[in-house]
Order: sequence, then C-alpha cells, then structure tokens
Amino acid sequence: MKYLFLTMLCLLAAAVQAQQKRDFVLVVHGGAGTILKSKMTTEREKQYNAGLKSALEAGYTILEQGGSALDAVEAAVKVLEDNALFNAGRGAVFTNEGRNELDASVMDGKSRSAGAVAGVTTVKNPVSAARRVMEKSSHVMMSGAGADRFAAEQGLEIVDPSYFFTEDRYRALQKIKAEDSLKTELDHADKKDGSFHFKNTDSKFGTVGAVALDKNGSLAAATSTGGMTNKRYGRVGDSPIIGAGTYADNATCAVSCTGWGEYFIRLVMAKTVSDMMEFGKITLKEAAEEMILRRLPALGGDGGLIAVDSHGNIVMPFNTEGMYRGYIDEKGKPEIKIYKD
Amino acid sequence: MKYLFLTMLCLLAAAVQAQQKRDFVLVVHGGAGTILKSKMTTEREKQYNAGLKSALEAGYTILEQGGSALDAVEAAVKVLEDNALFNAGRGAVFTNEGRNELDASVMDGKSRSAGAVAGVTTVKNPVSAARRVMEKSSHVMMSGAGADRFAAEQGLEIVDPSYFFTEDRYRALQKIKAEDSLKTELDHADKKDGSFHFKNTDSKFGTVGAVALDKNGSLAAATSTGGMTNKRYGRVGDSPIIGAGTYADNATCAVSCTGWGEYFIRLVMAKTVSDMMEFGKITLKEAAEEMILRRLPALGGDGGLIAVDSHGNIVMPFNTEGMYRGYIDEKGKPEIKIYKD
Repeated sequence: MKYLFLTMLCLLAAAVQAQQKRDFVLVVHGGAGTILKSKMTTEREKQYNAGLKSALEAGYTILEQGGSALDAVEAAVKVLEDNALFNAGRGAVFTNEGRNELDASVMDGKSRSAGAVAGVTTVKNPVSAARRVMEKSSHVMMSGAGADRFAAEQGLEIVDPSYFFTEDRYRALQKIKAEDSLKTELDHADKKDGSFHFKNTDSKFGTVGAVALDKNGSLAAATSTGGMTNKRYGRVGDSPIIGAGTYADNATCAVSCTGWGEYFIRLVMAKTVSDMMEFGKITLKEAAEEMILRRLPALGGDGGLIAVDSHGNIVMPFNTEGMYRGYIDEKGKPEIKIYKD
Repeated sequence: MKYLFLTMLCLLAAAVQAQQKRDFVLVVHGGAGTILKSKMTTEREKQYNAGLKSALEAGYTILEQGGSALDAVEAAVKVLEDNALFNAGRGAVFTNEGRNELDASVMDGKSRSAGAVAGVTTVKNPVSAARRVMEKSSHVMMSGAGADRFAAEQGLEIVDPSYFFTEDRYRALQKIKAEDSLKTELDHADKKDGSFHFKNTDSKFGTVGAVALDKNGSLAAATSTGGMTNKRYGRVGDSPIIGAGTYADNATCAVSCTGWGEYFIRLVMAKTVSDMMEFGKITLKEAAEEMILRRLPALGGDGGLIAVDSHGNIVMPFNTEGMYRGYIDEKGKPEIKIYKD
C-alpha cells in the first residue's frame, strides 16, 4: 500500500513536470563571444539592453495576442537586424572584398517547414526572405543573386548594399586585414591555414536569433547573421543551415545557435539537441548543456545557443565569456543578461 | 550456475555481433528515382552497370591497399562525376538559366571534419573541391564564384563551363521548361507554388555518392550533384549540406543521400540516422529504414540513401522505383543493383 502511494506520488510529480510550464515564451540572442564587463561602457551596455528589449517586446505583442511562434521569431529577429549594434541585417560585418553578405534561416516546428537564404546583399531583412522561401517556394534554401531576385519578386523591401555599411564594422575589417596580412607573412609556411587567419575571436560572433513557444503549443526558430569579418570565398556558416544553426520541431524543441559556425555545422548542433531529446529521452537542459559545454569545446569550438521546449522550458547555455540574451513570457517582463550568471 | 552460463553465452553472442563484419567495404549510389525496368534499354542498363563498377573498382584499389575511406569515397565519386550518365560533374542538369551549377560535400568520420561547395561552375570535380575546403581552409562550406576561385587557387583542374554540357540534359531542360510554362499558365492562381513546377519527378534525382569503411576502421562519406533540372534562384539542395545529404562519424556510421533534397534538409536525414544509432541505440538498418521508408514518405518526400557502420554492415534503402547502387568488399566482387530486390 505504501509503495502504491509512493508510485502514484511519483507519477503525479512527473505529470506536473510534463505540463506546460509557461503559456508562451520568446527567447532572443544577439551573439556570443568575448564580451567582458571590464571592456564594456555603461552607455554601450544600455544600448545592447535596449536593443534586446525592443526585440522581446516586438515578439511579446504577437504572442500575447495569440499570434504564432513563427510570427514572433520573425518580428524579434527583424528588430535585431534593423539595429546596427548586431551582426545581422544593418550592422553586418564585411567580407574580405568589403561587401556585406547576409545569411538567415527560419523553421516552423508545427509543419517542420524551413526556409533559408545565404549570401544575399540587397534584402533589408534576410529573415523575412528566409520565411518567403519557406512559404512561397518549394525550395528550402536559396543563395546569392538568385535569392536576392526571389526576395525582390516577393515584394520584400530591397535596399542599396550601402544600407548595410556601418563605420564600426568597416574599421573592424581594416584592422583584421592589417593583422591578417602580417600573420600571413609570418606564417606563410603553414600551408594548411595559409588562407585564413582570424586572430580576433569576436570576428566570428554577433549572430542574432529567436525561439518561441506560442499559446497553441507551437514552436519556431529563426537565425540571422552577417557572418565572419574578412570572410572569403563565399564562406557559408551555420546560420542558414537547417539542423546546424536553426531547428524546430513541436515534438521536441526550437533552437537558434551563435558561435564559430564551422563547429556548429560539423556537430549539426541544433538537430542533435533535438535528437538527444527524442531518441535519448533526456531533457532540453541536459541535451543543450552536453552539446555546448562538453561536445563543442571538446571539438575545439565555442559559442552558445538558445532553445525552448514544448513545455516552455528555456535554456541559454554558452561557453564564451558572454552572450547577449534575454526572454519574455506571459508575465510580460523582459529578462536580459549579457555576462555569465 | 545455469544462469551464469546463459549470461556468458549471451555476452559472447553480443561480442561476436559487435565485431567488424567486413575488413573494408565501399558503397556507391548514382541516384534514386523513377527507374523502371520496362523503360530501360539493355544497352543503357549496361552503361549504368559499367559506370557503377568503375567507381567501385577505383575505391576498391585504394581500400585493398590499406588506403583511407576518405580517399576511397573521393576516388569513387570522381569516377561518377566524370561519367555523363550521372547528374554530377559532367552530365549535371541545367538550371533555369541554362547553366550547370554543381554541389558536393565530404566528411571524414575519424576527425568529423567536413567540407562542401555549393553552386560551383568551373571545377571539374566538385567532390575534390569539397575535400580541399575541408583540408586546406578553416571553413566547412564555400559557395558560388568564391568557391570556384578557391578551387583554382588550390590547383584543382578548372574547366570551361561548357565541359558540363550534355545534349540529353539540355533537352531535358527544354522539355521541362515547356511543361513548366504551360503549367504556370494553368495554375497561376496558386500563389503558393506559382514559381515552381516540377512535373517530371526525375528532374530531382541523379545525385551520386559513396560511403566507405577502411581497414583501420575509419568511415567517410561523399555526395555530389548537379541538383534539379530547371532550378532557380540559386537553389541549394541537401547534397552540400553536412547533416542532410552527407554525414560520417566513426562512432556510428557514414551516410550519403539522394532524392528530393528539400525533404532531406528538413529531416536532417544523414545526421538523424547517426543520432538514432547513438542516442536511440538501434542498428543502422533500423535507423535507415525508419527514416527512408517511414519518416520521409510521411512528410511527402522520396529518395534513398547508402550507409555503412563501423562493423561494415551496409544498407541501401529507397522508397522510389529504383536506385542505382552497388558495393564491393574484401572479396573484390562488385555487387550492383538498379531496381527493387
């Protein structure tokens, strides 16, 4: 009798835990990297906080009114793309050729539909172009000039490439190029890495993203980036790769990544978190921490991710000094963090 | 005592099963699709058989001499790329603009390093370009003209785009364009699919790929394609996407996919097979069949894959009428099939 009671208590506890924890929730990130409090001015910290808050509020308005997770993540990412502080949309870093080439992707956890664009140069909001690819074409991924043309045909806002120019990012390119050419000269015997040098680890970071759970229990994820400063050869990172930078499935979770893209591609980061939950029967927290705190550094990479499961549990792990991140749920109060807890 | 004996017997049986089944093995595919025996001439069947046999023999020579799985899959895929029968390298299908844009990827299961190129137009063997990206750059994926430039700088063989021209494929483009414009006219009210019509399901197929296990127990996978006939907007399929079209990990398996790329991307096909083995503790056969025979058609897609695990077990499932496929192991006898068993 005592055992029966204990068993029932355990079952009850499990049932409570399995219930939706939140009505709805939106999580955003503005990139992970070498973000040190000692090097941050109060003014700049305020700007980042305000930027993340605006993104959270844009998505909150949608979710609170019963809108979809998909609409919420797109709206939040658009706000971050329009903010020159972040390396996505306006504020994107420069390629070696001095251009801004933008990548974005989106996935709807309900239908497991997905869309992505890589290397666009004229679409004001790449995340919206990714959504159009998902909803208005039978393709998942488009690249280069073809993707720009598709976005224009879809009636999205097209801008002159100079729209993406920001003085800060341009100076970053000049700086890294100076360092790069020096390093190339010193290391020219090192054939393996002869073509690439990224001394400034921050050059890899600044991607933005959002994941959400809506009132109907649906999940969505979106990611957008300008890539790496001084990138060459049409390099594609993890942000437009479904399964690497972005993944969503109502049965498990929605994930958006930021960090050293090459490692996230090799680990197929976002889908692996989902698969650990589905096939390994572990929690979102266990899966995300295993990937970001153990497997990612074990391979030599760094970065972080944000994710939400179908019960509204959220995680925001990273293995760098900081990650611009925040969330908002039905309480309507934005919670924003930059450094480690 | 009886139980101890039985337990030991079970452990022994498990140990035997876990042992490497084959010294080495190479599996290749030349695409899945509507391949009907009733529509195939004896002459054409002979040509396909000969093409697959050459690819298997090229890889066998390497594996038999103790070479790496990575060298074997590259060699096998190069043979298929050079053969105009297959939709990869020479023989690639045409885009809407009448160009040949090629994608390829490769992954080394030992280091879990990967490389990919998307939309190259002048590299004779895209699979070799993918391998150079993996080994000679710090990137995983390069696209468009930048990827072509990188391949040239690496000393790979560069050809005039006309090298990829084949009369058969060009006629296929003209045919599908004629059908397409008609269908667009009839269906112009269907906004969702207004831009894309692929009546000819074969237009999606013909990708080539290889997976191998070498004598040292290492796995590798490679995939190469010309994509879909009449593709537009810089469409990228699953072949250059690590995790979707290609994946390899010595701990689990090596996978190369062929089929309707959009579905393979959404399912993150290759990595999911690996994750089902790693986290779900099922066999390669169970995982591959679950994905190709159940989850892929459930989502509305079709195609197939080839895979090998670290014990040399191989699978070649597909849910289409046929798949050009074959394998060779230490016995040295190529086994080739086209239709269903």
